[in-house]
Amino acid sequence: MVDPVHTPQTPSVDDLPVAPVPGATLSRTAAQTLTEQLAERFASRIRDRLLAPGARLPSVRQCAQQHGLNPSTVVAAYDQLLARGLVEARRNRGFFVRERGPASAGSAAGKSPATAPGAAVPRMVAPVNAATLIRGMFHPSEGKPQPGAGVFPPEWLENSFMSAAVRKVSTHAALADASLRYGEPQGDGLLRRVLATRLQGMGLPADPAQIITTVGATHALDIVSRTLLKPGDAVMVEEPGWAVEFARLHALGMRVLPVPRGPAGPDLAVMERYCEAHAPKLFVSVSVLHNPTGYSLTPASAHRVLQLAQRHHFLVVEDDTYGHIAPEHATRMGVLDGLQRTIYVSGFAKILAPNWRVGYLVAPPDWTERLLDTKMLATLTTPSLLERAMAHCIEQGQLRRHAERIRHRLDLARSRSAKLAQAAGCRFVAEPAGLFGWVDTGTDTEALAQRLLDEGYLTAPGSLFYANRAPSTLMRINFATTQDAAFWRTFSRLAGAR
Amino acid sequence: MVDPVHTPQTPSVDDLPVAPVPGATLSRTAAQTLTEQLAERFASRIRDRLLAPGARLPSVRQCAQQHGLNPSTVVAAYDQLLARGLVEARRNRGFFVRERGPASAGSAAGKSPATAPGAAVPRMVAPVNAATLIRGMFHPSEGKPQPGAGVFPPEWLENSFMSAAVRKVSTHAALADASLRYGEPQGDGLLRRVLATRLQGMGLPADPAQIITTVGATHALDIVSRTLLKPGDAVMVEEPGWAVEFARLHALGMRVLPVPRGPAGPDLAVMERYCEAHAPKLFVSVSVLHNPTGYSLTPASAHRVLQLAQRHHFLVVEDDTYGHIAPEHATRMGVLDGLQRTIYVSGFAKILAPNWRVGYLVAPPDWTERLLDTKMLATLTTPSLLERAMAHCIEQGQLRRHAERIRHRLDLARSRSAKLAQAAGCRFVAEPAGLFGWVDTGTDTEALAQRLLDEGYLTAPGSLFYANRAPSTLMRINFATTQDAAFWRTFSRLAGAR
Repeated sequence: MVDPVHTPQTPSVDDLPVAPVPGATLSRTAAQTLTEQLAERFASRIRDRLLAPGARLPSVRQCAQQHGLNPSTVVAAYDQLLARGLVEARRNRGFFVRERGPASAGSAAGKSPATAPGAAVPRMVAPVNAATLIRGMFHPSEGKPQPGAGVFPPEWLENSFMSAAVRKVSTHAALADASLRYGEPQGDGLLRRVLATRLQGMGLPADPAQIITTVGATHALDIVSRTLLKPGDAVMVEEPGWAVEFARLHALGMRVLPVPRGPAGPDLAVMERYCEAHAPKLFVSVSVLHNPTGYSLTPASAHRVLQLAQRHHFLVVEDDTYGHIAPEHATRMGVLDGLQRTIYVSGFAKILAPNWRVGYLVAPPDWTERLLDTKMLATLTTPSLLERAMAHCIEQGQLRRHAERIRHRLDLARSRSAKLAQAAGCRFVAEPAGLFGWVDTGTDTEALAQRLLDEGYLTAPGSLFYANRAPSTLMRINFATTQDAAFWRTFSRLAGAR
Repeated sequence: MVDPVHTPQTPSVDDLPVAPVPGATLSRTAAQTLTEQLAERFASRIRDRLLAPGARLPSVRQCAQQHGLNPSTVVAAYDQLLARGLVEARRNRGFFVRERGPASAGSAAGKSPATAPGAAVPRMVAPVNAATLIRGMFHPSEGKPQPGAGVFPPEWLENSFMSAAVRKVSTHAALADASLRYGEPQGDGLLRRVLATRLQGMGLPADPAQIITTVGATHALDIVSRTLLKPGDAVMVEEPGWAVEFARLHALGMRVLPVPRGPAGPDLAVMERYCEAHAPKLFVSVSVLHNPTGYSLTPASAHRVLQLAQRHHFLVVEDDTYGHIAPEHATRMGVLDGLQRTIYVSGFAKILAPNWRVGYLVAPPDWTERLLDTKMLATLTTPSLLERAMAHCIEQGQLRRHAERIRHRLDLARSRSAKLAQAAGCRFVAEPAGLFGWVDTGTDTEALAQRLLDEGYLTAPGSLFYANRAPSTLMRINFATTQDAAFWRTFSRLAGAR
């Protein structure tokens, strides 16, 4: 029997800069009535899915109190939402955001996998609406730093070399070479050579022929899932973990088996039981500076995971998205097993250019061809122009020096943000490391996130990081964007107001 | 009952510039023996999948004759391939390229959909190995124009404005804005506005909010399939048709229902029978300048297809990849139905920059959100830098003028190539139009393609365009790359030698 995994905690936003919320306070002098304003605020959050399907609206009493309104105004606003089909009332339980409308009927994405054999697969609710919360990225964050962001603020990433690198690959001659033909399906040759050299320096025996470039690390993980798995297959994923991964596997019809992630690595006893009960095909792991905890895998854990993989014939996808802000000597499973059962995935969104969408995977030689086929069926090729510009940034050492500067700056920010968080009553569940802090706020963070949104802050509540979106008192903070004492004052006020 | 579709014809290479084949003639003075050279030539073609899994090697007699070798040399070479596990011998039938090796075992891609309900779905062989043949793109074609190419030669696409457009989006300030944050999930706002204006000019009621940018039109088609279909669903696809579409749908586990495409449009009687027997969810159509025939849909056909779609509740994906080289007034289904049941897909690979991978889809409003979720789960966002550069090219009328020049040049090329093709004994099955000619060579074009490869020409045999890869005497030629009399002399010699 496999233990259903105990998820202590609440919801949040992930890899995203976020929107200042329009109309932080309701106005008694506006053209719209207070009822209309309140209804419209909820409606726009539901539309942007900052309030996810299934989420509960605050009780009438709570809402009235928070906004200093008459309860009848709140009731009228909720009735408007009801009439517009955005929420539903559940007897004695309150108002809930409705699951999505007519379009969802015919689609595969919302369906459960056809087969559900075996025992005790933790129940999944409707796909984690994380893809969704990335909507926050629509609105470039103006002014306020965003505690829920999953990337560095743009001003941290500014540099002088990217512009030059792009100019180099966009001369008339360079364009004819790299833009006016389809390009190599595996990806730009120069980038793959430069990456191979860098990876070999880390101890990964990567040949350029084993590297496939992708539209960011996300695309690499997507290609891996589509190539190695078929609907109904079981996949082990670390929990807490990045919501887009849960959502994608769910949309592809896979059975997600969440594996508790601890400071040393994944819970091996749980993995072993999953292997016996479900014969999973794959284990997805962020080994170094895990999102959201910041944990890094120990060598002993890595060794045992790989032993288990060999004994139970599953493959490992090692997502090293945060590799650039980690020490080079950090333990990677791909290094230990020499890329025999490990597919290594990484990219540059977290260190240089989130929107260049340059990522890659490095696969065991036996798998390269099939993975490449999947890439080609999905996108044919990927843009050489940006890949080659990235290669120039790496080749000339500029990225390395830039990463050093960022790491140094992050160390200072982490130290400051951690102090502020603690002073605001947060307890670090994991030792602060890397870009993210994983903190216990002592209060339901999904509800808190809604209140913080009212003040213009997008945060990342804990439930987002759990496959079943269980309520949580945990929250992920971005150390780079939580150095502002003003945020923590607001946080304390709202968390305390609870 | 649904008629099994009659596919008259042979295999080929598709949307691709192609590789000069190494070692066009075997050398008696080389370091390797003739046996080794011959074995290596076949091995490299199998590796690059210019000889697809399941393909038959020439008979020993034929091969010996073609290369002026002793039959025992050929037998020895085939034995080497056998020993390397690349081919298998079938009693009394000869040698066949083996299906793919160990890696394929655990994969979904090679499996049939779990369910196969209903009657008479045309049998599919192993997924059309087309993705595969795109490998040809690896080698930039040097010197010889490639008759099998699916795009214009790079020198046709050269222009002075792309370079300027890229410079504009890669200044320090522009980079901070468009590269250092994730960007809008739906795609660059400027590009979507510019596209909306252009599409509205064509009569498509496209709002920027309905447009989602993608990594080329291929990615748009992939997103549509993943969002609208679940494994086992039936999909109607025009036949002959683009091999990557067949291969992708097959890899996703869909049941492909090929619909014969004629000069006026798809065969409506066949579609009607499919609808009754299989309740397909989707119809994929290249309405204008269809690949490979060059046919364009008549208004009457478009009207009837849409009526059928409404009656049988399927959606239509209109792939307008060749729209830029077609007259603006050509009939689009999306225009007729005002994007009610039609998802419109296009891109810029065929007119400006194959490797920028800028494509897009325009969906009925009800579907936009779910399609966007799929995009985000697969790639988060797409590169704004290239999207915005493309927007500048369109906005300033440069792309329009460029397209006019290309169309004019193509008209001249088409006229010249068509004459040469006819002089070489080819018969046009479809009236020459657009980029491609669809010709009957009177000989098996898969075998012919192998002989032409020996001379350094990659061609596009007809079997590639059929879901079941039935042998064919048809061939697709690219009018822009078949103006060379030298190719047609080689063609005549080899086609006649048969």
